[in-house]
Amino acid sequence: MTSFAFIEPSLAQQTIELPSWAFGNSGTRFKVFGTPGTPRTIEEKISDAAQVNQYTGLSPKVALHIPWDKVEDYAALRAFAADKGLALGTVNSNTFQDDAYKFGSLTHSNAATRQKAIDHHFECIDVMHQTGSADLKIWLADGTNYPGQGDIRGRQDRLAESLAAIYARLGDEHRLVLEYKFFEPAFYHTDVPDWGTSYAQVSALGEKASVCLDTGHHAPGTNIEFIVAQLLRLGKLGSFDFNSRFYADDDLIVGAADPFQLFRILYEVIRGGGYGPDSTVAFMLDQCHNVEDKIPGQIRSVLNVQEMTARALLVDRDALALAQNAGDVLGANGILMDAFYTDVRPSLSAWRESRGLAGDPMTAYAASGYQAQIAAERVGGSQAGWGA
Amino acid sequence: MTSFAFIEPSLAQQTIELPSWAFGNSGTRFKVFGTPGTPRTIEEKISDAAQVNQYTGLSPKVALHIPWDKVEDYAALRAFAADKGLALGTVNSNTFQDDAYKFGSLTHSNAATRQKAIDHHFECIDVMHQTGSADLKIWLADGTNYPGQGDIRGRQDRLAESLAAIYARLGDEHRLVLEYKFFEPAFYHTDVPDWGTSYAQVSALGEKASVCLDTGHHAPGTNIEFIVAQLLRLGKLGSFDFNSRFYADDDLIVGAADPFQLFRILYEVIRGGGYGPDSTVAFMLDQCHNVEDKIPGQIRSVLNVQEMTARALLVDRDALALAQNAGDVLGANGILMDAFYTDVRPSLSAWRESRGLAGDPMTAYAASGYQAQIAAERVGGSQAGWGA
Amino acid sequence: MTSFAFIEPSLAQQTIELPSWAFGNSGTRFKVFGTPGTPRTIEEKISDAAQVNQYTGLSPKVALHIPWDKVEDYAALRAFAADKGLALGTVNSNTFQDDAYKFGSLTHSNAATRQKAIDHHFECIDVMHQTGSADLKIWLADGTNYPGQGDIRGRQDRLAESLAAIYARLGDEHRLVLEYKFFEPAFYHTDVPDWGTSYAQVSALGEKASVCLDTGHHAPGTNIEFIVAQLLRLGKLGSFDFNSRFYADDDLIVGAADPFQLFRILYEVIRGGGYGPDSTVAFMLDQCHNVEDKIPGQIRSVLNVQEMTARALLVDRDALALAQNAGDVLGANGILMDAFYTDVRPSLSAWRESRGLAGDPMTAYAASGYQAQIAAERVGGSQAGWGA
Amino acid sequence: MTSFAFIEPSLAQQTIELPSWAFGNSGTRFKVFGTPGTPRTIEEKISDAAQVNQYTGLSPKVALHIPWDKVEDYAALRAFAADKGLALGTVNSNTFQDDAYKFGSLTHSNAATRQKAIDHHFECIDVMHQTGSADLKIWLADGTNYPGQGDIRGRQDRLAESLAAIYARLGDEHRLVLEYKFFEPAFYHTDVPDWGTSYAQVSALGEKASVCLDTGHHAPGTNIEFIVAQLLRLGKLGSFDFNSRFYADDDLIVGAADPFQLFRILYEVIRGGGYGPDSTVAFMLDQCHNVEDKIPGQIRSVLNVQEMTARALLVDRDALALAQNAGDVLGANGILMDAFYTDVRPSLSAWRESRGLAGDPMTAYAASGYQAQIAAERVGGSQAGWGA
Repeated sequence: MTSFAFIEPSLAQQTIELPSWAFGNSGTRFKVFGTPGTPRTIEEKISDAAQVNQYTGLSPKVALHIPWDKVEDYAALRAFAADKGLALGTVNSNTFQDDAYKFGSLTHSNAATRQKAIDHHFECIDVMHQTGSADLKIWLADGTNYPGQGDIRGRQDRLAESLAAIYARLGDEHRLVLEYKFFEPAFYHTDVPDWGTSYAQVSALGEKASVCLDTGHHAPGTNIEFIVAQLLRLGKLGSFDFNSRFYADDDLIVGAADPFQLFRILYEVIRGGGYGPDSTVAFMLDQCHNVEDKIPGQIRSVLNVQEMTARALLVDRDALALAQNAGDVLGANGILMDAFYTDVRPSLSAWRESRGLAGDPMTAYAASGYQAQIAAERVGGSQAGWGA
Repeated sequence: MTSFAFIEPSLAQQTIELPSWAFGNSGTRFKVFGTPGTPRTIEEKISDAAQVNQYTGLSPKVALHIPWDKVEDYAALRAFAADKGLALGTVNSNTFQDDAYKFGSLTHSNAATRQKAIDHHFECIDVMHQTGSADLKIWLADGTNYPGQGDIRGRQDRLAESLAAIYARLGDEHRLVLEYKFFEPAFYHTDVPDWGTSYAQVSALGEKASVCLDTGHHAPGTNIEFIVAQLLRLGKLGSFDFNSRFYADDDLIVGAADPFQLFRILYEVIRGGGYGPDSTVAFMLDQCHNVEDKIPGQIRSVLNVQEMTARALLVDRDALALAQNAGDVLGANGILMDAFYTDVRPSLSAWRESRGLAGDPMTAYAASGYQAQIAAERVGGSQAGWGA
Repeated sequence: MTSFAFIEPSLAQQTIELPSWAFGNSGTRFKVFGTPGTPRTIEEKISDAAQVNQYTGLSPKVALHIPWDKVEDYAALRAFAADKGLALGTVNSNTFQDDAYKFGSLTHSNAATRQKAIDHHFECIDVMHQTGSADLKIWLADGTNYPGQGDIRGRQDRLAESLAAIYARLGDEHRLVLEYKFFEPAFYHTDVPDWGTSYAQVSALGEKASVCLDTGHHAPGTNIEFIVAQLLRLGKLGSFDFNSRFYADDDLIVGAADPFQLFRILYEVIRGGGYGPDSTVAFMLDQCHNVEDKIPGQIRSVLNVQEMTARALLVDRDALALAQNAGDVLGANGILMDAFYTDVRPSLSAWRESRGLAGDPMTAYAASGYQAQIAAERVGGSQAGWGA
Repeated sequence: MTSFAFIEPSLAQQTIELPSWAFGNSGTRFKVFGTPGTPRTIEEKISDAAQVNQYTGLSPKVALHIPWDKVEDYAALRAFAADKGLALGTVNSNTFQDDAYKFGSLTHSNAATRQKAIDHHFECIDVMHQTGSADLKIWLADGTNYPGQGDIRGRQDRLAESLAAIYARLGDEHRLVLEYKFFEPAFYHTDVPDWGTSYAQVSALGEKASVCLDTGHHAPGTNIEFIVAQLLRLGKLGSFDFNSRFYADDDLIVGAADPFQLFRILYEVIRGGGYGPDSTVAFMLDQCHNVEDKIPGQIRSVLNVQEMTARALLVDRDALALAQNAGDVLGANGILMDAFYTDVRPSLSAWRESRGLAGDPMTAYAASGYQAQIAAERVGGSQAGWGA
């Protein structure tokens, strides 16, 4: 197996973008539980995100969600974030909370509604110019609940037209990443349900468009690492939305449901050239901390990605290739498992300390008193959530 | 095949209980769309439910949800409903929207929280005495999101104790039906995830406890009609929550996603003695009309159940038994399919008219002007939804 | 709704290719049951296939499987089939039953093994020249059972090379159709698991390559009609392998598990231009009659496709478009369901008789005495199955 | 976390029964690959099983499959095994490979066929008296492929009768364990599809009947550890068939597909009292080594169970209970994960050596030359597989 010392330079390159909305309240259609200290503003979300970066050194960027994080002055917001050691990252559009989009946004049969949705993306691009963001991420709630409700084919054609209009507006330094999702909130058909659809759509747009892979957006049993390998091969893996799931789009902490799957995904990322300085694949979290504390939930998440990346980097790829080519099934599998079962936590702890970080970020954060402080300070106002 | 005339007496016995909440707004965690005319009160919900019964003759009962439908005077509510030709049906408890239940209700590790949840059920039983309701339906959101978060085994033991306390409070004329659900809102484990758990728990309670089967609460691929047959055989099928699904608990209109499955379910109900005057199995809807009109959505739903019941009644069971026993696979399957493919709609339309009902309830309702009337009248106030 | 008379010309154009192997024995890893009268040779399979066409008028072509249907003289076989009123159709390659392919065929890490598999396809193309077949269908069992066993990315690259070599050998009149499959016989990863992979691979080959969609080869819950609509839109839907499933690749009679799904698939085929004289989409069955009689099983299958095609053709598409564009969810769904619930069997029966066919092909075949005749005649020899 | 030294006594109690058929060839419906050295007889299978025990000290029992392992003299077989240090374990019946059982065995509509299947189980019980086996394991392939093919309810009633007849024949020292399976080889309905059915059936039999949980026999997404906890609570968990799966009943090496799931299952076993000297829960493997070497495949499997048992024993249950009761989601989860991520392999290796076993059983076996020896010796004859 590769030695830990050998992989340290690779580990040092890792960054994982945080979603601003992970710091606000979230829940299910049954209930959203509030918690003391939940941010009321994007500035408070950024402050919380800075905590994650302070203790892990892993998350120097925060993604925004428009309109949830809309502000008057994005330059000021950018400066505020920079002051906390953070950059503003991916801009996420939102076309699922306006009454106009009940039957679709970029795919709507009505041209005016489509234009309204396109205009929203133009606004997002304007924001990107001010925030210095590189990526415009599009996740669509578009779909239908009943067979016959919509014209599947026509909606796909309209989606292509709408995306082309948005793509044309991108700046030279911008990318468009199109997320796919198996189902929810639409329950019969989803307009971008799988990687194939996202791939076909972004391929038609051009080089600045690629696919966003959310690890929770697949059919039961889907081999996600295969999709990773395939999209890297096709040059179209733009970014990850990391989280984990047991059933549907549960949006749990990444690595919590199936740590071995996370390992396999990261192994294929590395194998396919999606990790490191030459890669343009963006790592991002997209999670909902419905019942657990939010800031430590984010710390736990980035650590999970880091720990599993370390394990994946430890795989002895030369030995693996030999075993694979020899048809040594148990030997090849054993090489992979050897890395997976290695407890990298002590090495990572020491390495973190050598870089001036907390050896155990979870404990260090808990001991910091920040949680009590925000619980005490953030009284009144309206806690941030998914509301527009 | 059996003749339509022969099944008419059976059809005349059918009733399908409506859920009060189907007339209110519902949605997903992403968005709840409001619509003009949505009821603000339980009285308005009952008025809407009366429309469904007026045009179909199928739905003389409305189920209540406590606290959503809480009123000061249940006797007055009962009289109001009776005046509309309706009885008050199943009382549904709710232990998923109070902050106290974040980590469980009847299963909570804290005794005081469990007692609070038990007390809520006592309150429901009090309501039942006033409304004349027979069934107390318990669906629990209890569960956990992360491995280790809760003690699965201990929670099950506490559930048994809590249920016993509630069961002991039931009136002689009451039943307790325990619903199971595969997942959501909990994403790692659910305390009553499958029929086996519900069956084991209600068996321990006694004769007045039985299982509620919600057709949308199963793992992918589950053969639901098998569960129907098994529960009827064990004498523990208490009631149905009808709806349909493509993915998770989509709560779509019953029969909309897989009409053939609905047919097979109803066939096993009839085969197993769960239909007709000697059966105590209650038919109920539990649906969410997120994007379609609510009252016609309910009309469509009860008609779907009726039409599929008619098809299931048409199966020539003697011929089927002969083919089954002869190992005639295609013949036996053909006998079932023959009934399924029979278009019962013209016969049902004529039969409805012979009973003084609208031949085509959907069209008759649409022509009635009721929708425009409630849209005009129900202005102001707060539209009903899932909020407490 | 459209009238039956109006759709008759469209129905007259329908042909459904039969798989030769459906007439041989098949089963599961647990047991293959034999039956009296099962063909021993490809000629006997063709004779049986001719029965299906004789009673339905729907199946003038038989697909071959190499090497299962290997003969010395393909010209003679073609003449034999023509004499029975049949043409020889798709040639199916087989790289899953040779010991050499234990760890892959077109994707194998060993160049000699890959070449062996490529050569097999060259042989298939040679057969196609003799049989007059247009389509070479490639379904690969390639994949791995354990993480690490193979190099997912490298296998994909080798697949591309191998396919290119095969593609280059096609005649001008030939097509290559690449089938995808979610899993089985490989249990960790499959080299062509989804439509996206098949689409990406055939797109790289050229215009003569397209995707084969087997209706049983998807993850649970997959919206297959969406894939149909998407592939037609992309111009890459080459052919169907029709069958049905409840769980995995059950290979049951098409329409037996979810007739409404078959209806929706056929509706999208028609909607997307995949049906009729201008379409190059090939309809084919791929089924296993493990426990039911084979010839009537095939008759039932082609009738199911025909009946569901008729229902899909009956959809009033103008009315549907109006309802869709008006956001009338229940209205649009109702228009689709109206066609689905129409019992087209009497009309089809009369129409068949008007064309000199049996009104009820199942009954006519059963009365013909053919089954008893082959059971009596086909004594001795080795019944055909999946063995090489 | 609990210390390794503390759990050593518990580890010393672990035994995992091996299935004789794991040493023979197996495969899919597409192909069974043979391998040099595969046993031809039950004696050779036992010899191979002895190798697994020799290097791991974990597997002192071998399960038999009747009729695959039928011999004239079971006393001699028992002595042969004892000579190799092994006892004969569970006797597995087989009612899925006789033509008579095409449409069912214990559930068949024909009384004579049912009796034939019952008689087979009587024969198995006779074998048990001679072999000293304690458990009769019943897995049924019974089910149907098409709706209507069989009478689901009647089959369940007949199953109850047949099981009662078998149960009555058990010796005082015998147990009957009834396995359930979601699907395959039947594709529409399975007569014992879920734990609820098995539980209801064995509960009706009596104290000597319990449930066998095969970890590969569930619907996608099923929380298996919940079932473990529930069955232990109900006192009806008789035995495990360990294996792993990505999709269906893949029968892969236990722990290979989802090691974290195996950990959670073993944790609930321990939590619920199903592990250790006071437990009657039997641990057994049921796997198919289709593409990997069989003996090392079995060694890998028992080691996986041992390693994961060690991790599950390491969980600090007191600290976990505190965190659970405090509603500390991340803390509780962290305590579980801490044990899971601990690399127990070095400790286990040292512990094995302290007991006179090979520190690394995989390497020791590979170095032993046994594989080459059996490949050289076992020439000619017919390799064992699933054939009768």
